[in-house]
Amino acid sequence: MHTLPRDGLALSSLDEQLLLPGTKGLPITEPLRQGAVGVQGWNVLRGDTSFPVAVLKTSALQHNLAWMQAFCARHGVTLAPHGKTTMSPQLFAAQLANGAWGITLASATQVQVAHRFNVRRVLLANQLVARADIAAVLALLHADPDFECFVLADSLEGVALLAAARASHALARPLPVLVELGLHGKRAGCRSPEQALAVARAVAAAEGLALAGFEGYEGLLVSQDRDADLRAVRAFLAELVDLVETADAEGLFGAAEILLSAGGSSYFDLVARGFAGIDGLSRPVRAVLRSGCYLTSDHGSYQRLLAQLDAREAHADGLRPALEVWSSVQSRPEPGLAILTMGKRDASYDETLPAPLFMHRPGSAANAPSVLPPGCEIVKMNDQHAYLRLPEGAIRAALQVGDLVGCGISHPCTTFDKWPVLLAVDDAYHVTQALNTFF
Amino acid sequence: MHTLPRDGLALSSLDEQLLLPGTKGLPITEPLRQGAVGVQGWNVLRGDTSFPVAVLKTSALQHNLAWMQAFCARHGVTLAPHGKTTMSPQLFAAQLANGAWGITLASATQVQVAHRFNVRRVLLANQLVARADIAAVLALLHADPDFECFVLADSLEGVALLAAARASHALARPLPVLVELGLHGKRAGCRSPEQALAVARAVAAAEGLALAGFEGYEGLLVSQDRDADLRAVRAFLAELVDLVETADAEGLFGAAEILLSAGGSSYFDLVARGFAGIDGLSRPVRAVLRSGCYLTSDHGSYQRLLAQLDAREAHADGLRPALEVWSSVQSRPEPGLAILTMGKRDASYDETLPAPLFMHRPGSAANAPSVLPPGCEIVKMNDQHAYLRLPEGAIRAALQVGDLVGCGISHPCTTFDKWPVLLAVDDAYHVTQALNTFF
Repeated sequence: MHTLPRDGLALSSLDEQLLLPGTKGLPITEPLRQGAVGVQGWNVLRGDTSFPVAVLKTSALQHNLAWMQAFCARHGVTLAPHGKTTMSPQLFAAQLANGAWGITLASATQVQVAHRFNVRRVLLANQLVARADIAAVLALLHADPDFECFVLADSLEGVALLAAARASHALARPLPVLVELGLHGKRAGCRSPEQALAVARAVAAAEGLALAGFEGYEGLLVSQDRDADLRAVRAFLAELVDLVETADAEGLFGAAEILLSAGGSSYFDLVARGFAGIDGLSRPVRAVLRSGCYLTSDHGSYQRLLAQLDAREAHADGLRPALEVWSSVQSRPEPGLAILTMGKRDASYDETLPAPLFMHRPGSAANAPSVLPPGCEIVKMNDQHAYLRLPEGAIRAALQVGDLVGCGISHPCTTFDKWPVLLAVDDAYHVTQALNTFF
Repeated sequence: MHTLPRDGLALSSLDEQLLLPGTKGLPITEPLRQGAVGVQGWNVLRGDTSFPVAVLKTSALQHNLAWMQAFCARHGVTLAPHGKTTMSPQLFAAQLANGAWGITLASATQVQVAHRFNVRRVLLANQLVARADIAAVLALLHADPDFECFVLADSLEGVALLAAARASHALARPLPVLVELGLHGKRAGCRSPEQALAVARAVAAAEGLALAGFEGYEGLLVSQDRDADLRAVRAFLAELVDLVETADAEGLFGAAEILLSAGGSSYFDLVARGFAGIDGLSRPVRAVLRSGCYLTSDHGSYQRLLAQLDAREAHADGLRPALEVWSSVQSRPEPGLAILTMGKRDASYDETLPAPLFMHRPGSAANAPSVLPPGCEIVKMNDQHAYLRLPEGAIRAALQVGDLVGCGISHPCTTFDKWPVLLAVDDAYHVTQALNTFF
C-alpha cells in the first residue's frame, strides 16, 4: 500500500501536477505544469482559452472573503463554510486564511479530499451511516491525532451504527457528534426537541461517542411568504438554543465546548443574531455558520436572497458574484436565436438557467465586454448547447458566430461540480491561476 | 514541454494509476492501484463500498453492445456512438471492439481526451468556432497523420473561421467538414436545403477544407403527438438524402466517401431505414448513426422512447438499463419519508428524478435486493440529499437508517458526468472493475 503524508498535501503539489490536453477550458495541446498557467498570458476576452471556460473573478472573491470575515467578527460567530459548494483546495485555503475555523462537508469522501489538502477541522453536516464511510472517517481521526471531524446523528439507529463502528476501532479519542434538529415536511433531522434530546442522550451514553452540540439547517425555509419564512427561521433557531440549554442542564455534553450550528447562504445574519448571547452554560458555546455560497454569490437565486440579507444588515456593499461561464456563439440559425457552446455539462440549470451578461468579439479593439441588452435570455440547455433568445433590436445583427458570451450562473454548487479546473481572472479577464475541484 | 505518445495511451495506463481516498464510491483509506479494484472482493449489497456509488451492470452493457452491433449489421449502417454520454475510455474501447467505426464527440477538449486514449476516428458533431479549439483539433491531425476528425459547419461565418485557421496551419491534408442541416425552431443547423448547399459550396471552395458529407439531429423531435414526430423525422431524413444527391451532382464532395449522419438514441431505426438504398452517386455513401445512450439505456425517458423503437423493430429483447446509483438511508424523519445520501451531485435530475428500484440491508441473509413496492418515489433532490417518499404499507416499517436503496436513472449523460469513477458489477453486485470518465 502507498501512503499519503499524514498532515496532508501542500497546495504546491497541485502547482506541480501536469494538466493534460482535454481539460475543459484549457487551450493546451501538450501537458502543462499547473503552476505555469498564470504566466501563459491568456486572456479570456481575446479568445485565448478553450470555450466553454469557467472563470472566477479574483476581485469579487477577495471582496467576499473580507466581507464575511468582517461579518463574523461583528456578530461574534464562527465560520465553517460549506466546502461542498466548491470542493476546491485553493478556495478552502483562502477561506481558512480569511478566518474560517474549519470546513463543512457533506460526505466521507469529501472529508478525505479536504484532509488530503491539509484541512484540519471538518464539520460533516450529514448523517454518517454507511460502514465504509464511518470507517473512512475513523481511519483519518486515528492516523492523524490533530485532525478533527464532527459528524451528525438524528436517530437512535444512526447512533447505534456509529457506536458499533467506534467500539470495534482502535481510535483513542471519542467521536464528536452533533444531533440534528429538522423541520416538519423538510429534510433530515429530528422532528421535535424531545426526539433530539432522546438522540442526544443516546450519544452521551454511548462508549466512544461524545455529544458535541446541536445542528440544524434553516435554508430550506424559502416560500412565497417571506415574512412567514423569517418567523419560521427565528422560531427554529430559538428551538436549537433551547435544546442546547436543556442538554447542558442534563449534563449531556462531552467536549470542551458546545457547538451550535446552522446557517445556509440565505439567512446567516438571522442565525448570527439568533445564536448571540447564550451564556451561563457549563462550557463555552461556539455558534458556527456554514454558508458555502457567500464565497461566489451568484446571478440568480442567492443574489435575490442575499439582497434581502443586505437590506436586513443595512449593507450598501454586499457580496459580489464571482463565477461566470463563457462560451462561443456556434450558430445563428434564426434571427432571434443564438446557439452557444455551453450546456448542462457546463453551467447550473437546477434553480434558474444561466443569465447572459456580456458579449465580446475576439480581436476587437474593445478592452471590456459589452453588456447584453435586456431581453437576452437562455431559454433552454441541452447537454452541450445553450439556446440564447435575442430580443428585437440591434443585438440580432450584432451577435455573430464566433463571438463570446459571458453568463452569470444561479446556484454555484451545481456549476463548480462540472469543472475539474476553473480559471481565476482579474477584472480585465487575464488568467492568473488555475483552481482545482475534486468531486 | 512534455509530450504524450502520438498514438495515444493504452487503457492499461489507467489500471496503473493510483486511485486516491476521496474518490466517490470507493471505500479506500490508502491509495489503491486501479487495476486492483476487481480483486478487492467488494460487493455493493454487502455495503463494502462508499455510498453513494454508481454501478454499471456488465451483463446489460454486453447485451446492449451486441444488440447494437447486430442492429447495424442488419440495416447496413455504421455506428459512431456519441461519446459525450460516458466520456469513458474503457467504454469507448468496448464500443470500438463491438463494431463502432468511430466515436462522436461534442467539443475539442472531448476530442483531445478520446485521442489520448487511442480513439482513431472522431466525428465532432458541433460547430468548431473558437480559435484555441480549432487549433487543438488541427494540432492533433498534424501530429498524428492517421488520426481522423470530421467537424461541422452551418454558416458561412463558421466556414470562414475554419478556413482562416487552416490557411495559417502546416497541416498537410484537408480538414473534412460536414454541413449541418437543422430544424425550424430547434437547435443549430441550416434552416433550409438552400442554406445548407450555400455552406457546402463555401466548404468545397475553401482551400484546405473538404466537404465530407451532411449531418442532422432528429432527436429533438419529441412532442406529445408521436405520429407527427415520426412523420417529421422521416421528412427530415429525406431532406438530408436529397441534399447529398444535389451536392454530389454539383461535384462538391472532396473525400473518398460521403458521410450522411443522423441518429440520437430515440429514432436510430428510422435513420437506418431512411438512409438505406442510396446509390448511383460519384462515391460510396456511409450512413452513420450516433446514438450514445443505447449503451446504458435508462429507467426513464430513453426507456420509454426505446420501447417504442423496439415495437417498430418487432424486438422482444430490447436494450437493457445498465446504470444504477446506490445510496444509504441516512434519515427516516417522518413515516412516509426517507432521506438518502445521494443528490444532484450524484444522479440525473434534468429529465425525471431517479427511479427507486431496490432496497437491501447490508448483513442480511438475502443475496439479492428486494424490489421496492409501487408508490416509492424520489420527489426531490438537494445537492447531497434525495427525498424518497414511501407509500402507505409495510415499506414504512421495513426501511431503516443504514439500509441501501438502488435507483435507476433517467438520461444517463447527466449521471456519468457526476462520477470520475464508476464501478462495473456482475449480476450479484460483485465489483469487477473501475471505469473512468473524463469530463
